[in-house]
Amino acid sequence: MVNDEVKLYTTAGSPFVFRVQLALNLKGINYKTVEENLKNKSVDLLNYNPVHKEVPVLVHNGNPIPESLVIVEYIDDVWKGFPILPHDPYEKSVVRFWARFIDSTCIPALCKVFGNNGAEQAIADACEQLQVLENELVVKGNKFFGGDNINLIDIAASFIAYWLGMLEEGTEIKFVTKDKFPRITEWADNFVKVEVVKDVLPPRIIPPKAQLLAYFKQRFGDS
Amino acid sequence: MVNDEVKLYTTAGSPFVFRVQLALNLKGINYKTVEENLKNKSVDLLNYNPVHKEVPVLVHNGNPIPESLVIVEYIDDVWKGFPILPHDPYEKSVVRFWARFIDSTCIPALCKVFGNNGAEQAIADACEQLQVLENELVVKGNKFFGGDNINLIDIAASFIAYWLGMLEEGTEIKFVTKDKFPRITEWADNFVKVEVVKDVLPPRIIPPKAQLLAYFKQRFGDS
Repeated sequence: MVNDEVKLYTTAGSPFVFRVQLALNLKGINYKTVEENLKNKSVDLLNYNPVHKEVPVLVHNGNPIPESLVIVEYIDDVWKGFPILPHDPYEKSVVRFWARFIDSTCIPALCKVFGNNGAEQAIADACEQLQVLENELVVKGNKFFGGDNINLIDIAASFIAYWLGMLEEGTEIKFVTKDKFPRITEWADNFVKVEVVKDVLPPRIIPPKAQLLAYFKQRFGDS
Repeated sequence: MVNDEVKLYTTAGSPFVFRVQLALNLKGINYKTVEENLKNKSVDLLNYNPVHKEVPVLVHNGNPIPESLVIVEYIDDVWKGFPILPHDPYEKSVVRFWARFIDSTCIPALCKVFGNNGAEQAIADACEQLQVLENELVVKGNKFFGGDNINLIDIAASFIAYWLGMLEEGTEIKFVTKDKFPRITEWADNFVKVEVVKDVLPPRIIPPKAQLLAYFKQRFGDS
């Protein structure tokens, strides 16, 4: 697929865009980046993703694909090389289960902590979900969720490995400690050291506390 | 796979169990049903789905798979015959996008209507999401989301075709009218008439209003 045209609609620092950048990097795919201003979205972005009007959108030979995890599965379906999902249908279903858990249950619970200014109940709920991931790492005993190498689960969880710490620092709401979650902490340290991950991690930029809390309150606040 | 052992953990009337029953029926797979009492869940269910502790769980030759849409993709990966997802990677990504939209955005918005006793804002939010589906049916101009035949999108949306009407009747909160959503209404009528669908649809049983509203308030209420 030498003549493929691959374009990725991005915005700086997004953990969801990062998932796609990492998948493209794992496969060694060359692509063009179109940087979006989310306060003034381009006509192309609105056409390509009229339902959610969000980045990332991958456009492959003119075909637009929105939604980070849908894009990552597409990339794995189309390009050979590094396997992002296992080939075996049962193992694949296990990976899909965990990616879905992280995306639909775990990350929203974490965001609610910042959306509710570190409320005790929100922290308890988030820790309950993180504990599920902690246990999974303990039971499997692997370096990554994917085993010796990262896979779709690690990609889905990259928010936890990198962005969560920035949010804790920026908001001064710290609840994910090494004592409480030793395996998640170790996994996160290992994950950000992987070359293909390091290559595409955005710079560590922490917005002001008030700005962070206002943003999360509006999107994830209980009232 | 003549000697396959296929077991499905179910509970009566569940729209999520139904998705899996329909997928198994589309593929013509024989399976055993294990009916769960959700007030007193079996040790097997808790072992097979320790994260969510919910049905459906499919157990195939001893391997447990939870989460209805993960199970449906697994069924399509393992068994040939009727294609639940298209083969082409791009078309597959489109189908996954819509199934995800219905599951993560549309159905929760609908449940919030009943969780908030038909509050005006909740109805407006739900109608906004249904309008997205209505438009998709208009643009594509097909009988089903899948085209001439049903696919993963129709399976994901089966809650809208059958359960939503029962909930509207039981709670006396009616907001999905033929006038407002002519294509969705038509699609729902067509969907429940499909033989393989009719085969596995549960009986039309409507719990008392107070019971329905209490259940949804607890799970989907805003406060």
